[in-house]
Amino acid sequence: MLTYDRPVRFEEVDAAGIVFFPVFLNYCHDAMAALFDPLEGGYVRLVMERRIGLPTVHVEADYRAPLRYGDVARVEVKLLHMGSRSFSLGYTITRAADGLPVAEVKHVVATTDLHAMRAVPIPSDMRALLVRLSSSAP
Amino acid sequence: MLTYDRPVRFEEVDAAGIVFFPVFLNYCHDAMAALFDPLEGGYVRLVMERRIGLPTVHVEADYRAPLRYGDVARVEVKLLHMGSRSFSLGYTITRAADGLPVAEVKHVVATTDLHAMRAVPIPSDMRALLVRLSSSAP
Amino acid sequence: MLTYDRPVRFEEVDAAGIVFFPVFLNYCHDAMAALFDPLEGGYVRLVMERRIGLPTVHVEADYRAPLRYGDVARVEVKLLHMGSRSFSLGYTITRAADGLPVAEVKHVVATTDLHAMRAVPIPSDMRALLVRLSSSAP
Amino acid sequence: MLTYDRPVRFEEVDAAGIVFFPVFLNYCHDAMAALFDPLEGGYVRLVMERRIGLPTVHVEADYRAPLRYGDVARVEVKLLHMGSRSFSLGYTITRAADGLPVAEVKHVVATTDLHAMRAVPIPSDMRALLVRLSSSAP
Repeated sequence: MLTYDRPVRFEEVDAAGIVFFPVFLNYCHDAMAALFDPLEGGYVRLVMERRIGLPTVHVEADYRAPLRYGDVARVEVKLLHMGSRSFSLGYTITRAADGLPVAEVKHVVATTDLHAMRAVPIPSDMRALLVRLSSSAP
Repeated sequence: MLTYDRPVRFEEVDAAGIVFFPVFLNYCHDAMAALFDPLEGGYVRLVMERRIGLPTVHVEADYRAPLRYGDVARVEVKLLHMGSRSFSLGYTITRAADGLPVAEVKHVVATTDLHAMRAVPIPSDMRALLVRLSSSAP
Repeated sequence: MLTYDRPVRFEEVDAAGIVFFPVFLNYCHDAMAALFDPLEGGYVRLVMERRIGLPTVHVEADYRAPLRYGDVARVEVKLLHMGSRSFSLGYTITRAADGLPVAEVKHVVATTDLHAMRAVPIPSDMRALLVRLSSSAP
Repeated sequence: MLTYDRPVRFEEVDAAGIVFFPVFLNYCHDAMAALFDPLEGGYVRLVMERRIGLPTVHVEADYRAPLRYGDVARVEVKLLHMGSRSFSLGYTITRAADGLPVAEVKHVVATTDLHAMRAVPIPSDMRALLVRLSSSAP
């Protein structure tokens, strides 16, 4: 499991004064990028040089409580499923200050050749990281 | 059914050159706001004066194909379910130019008193609009 | 002069409840894109096919009054200066409902070959549009 | 002087593949918030509890070179001017990897009572921080 803390930014709230609901998916994406940081060159090189993209094919989210400016989103990432050309991550988002449950997100991504926009097998270095995520204790 | 066209904006793509996946939820939210425009004062007055918010309690999305800058997202909205304090909308997103299926989104929102942050019954004028949405032919 | 109306979106306010100050530059960029819509293929084709970009080289803005969700920004665009490889636009932003002065923005952009990332002469069709903007009565 | 490093995020580039020009102002705002972190409760409490806002009254930026996904923006903040109800910050943005000059930004903000939306004297704890910024060596 990987834990990623993300303070709510000043401009991420909406006119109702709470974090705009799509923004939680930005937080999840940030956590996923952090997950792949141990790759050589990190998530950046994966996308920009190796041209492997991770387009979302499915996402679902349950929202339990709102976050506001000043809160820190704590995102815990775990591997839910590993396929050959796609994998699923589960994110549990809580409010860091007190552990209040905020959201549960399931996220399925496909490893994709960004030139051809076609799914490709999960590269072995990514696969190794995902396996490690799976087996790490909380 | 309501149809809402939304051109992809210059700044809505990501480093992979495609619309960043959370942004599709912005499009859905825009379509929902358009749905409530016939209310007196529209979605704006609902939130800002009547202080009725529509926080998302659940969302799920299947992504079929990416959009790029220059594309127009066509969002078709229909009512999936009406409860007493929440309702579900279904959004079918296609690429306007050729009808390419892009995404299917299911969105459950709760009608909420923004002062108390507590669910309240769906106001009757909103309910009337939702019923009309349901019964309109495609 | 070109006039472009842009409703404040639900997610464009910040934790102080007003439109986040960089967002006004998004409005100006939208207005500039609208200005080039009469080109064949519009601003989209300019960027995506002709690979002519309009990177900002200078911007300055004076803010007079805040906007809130529910307001409509009225952006009036005029040509301030035309060079050989760059031009300057002036944007006057008011609140559409009552004409309240909101912001004045000056924006200098360079016409740039996006492959080489090098300034190029303003293409003749863009130049024609800019001249027309200049000579049109308010 | 304060130095603030900010990696370019995946979703901050535009359809031309470079950081969208208004986003640099987000970086500056982040750096300003970091500047006020030593206040009790930080920038968050300033805005959310003390209800002191820092609306921008003027901003100007010169852009020298683009940033791309994978770059880190290094933002150096210094005090340019301190008035009674407003102050000016100067931000020098470089590319962290090699010091390439990216942008120079001047930013004038007014200390404002967010209830009354009226300028108020710079609170003494903020003033102390700004003075310290001014006198610190690079």
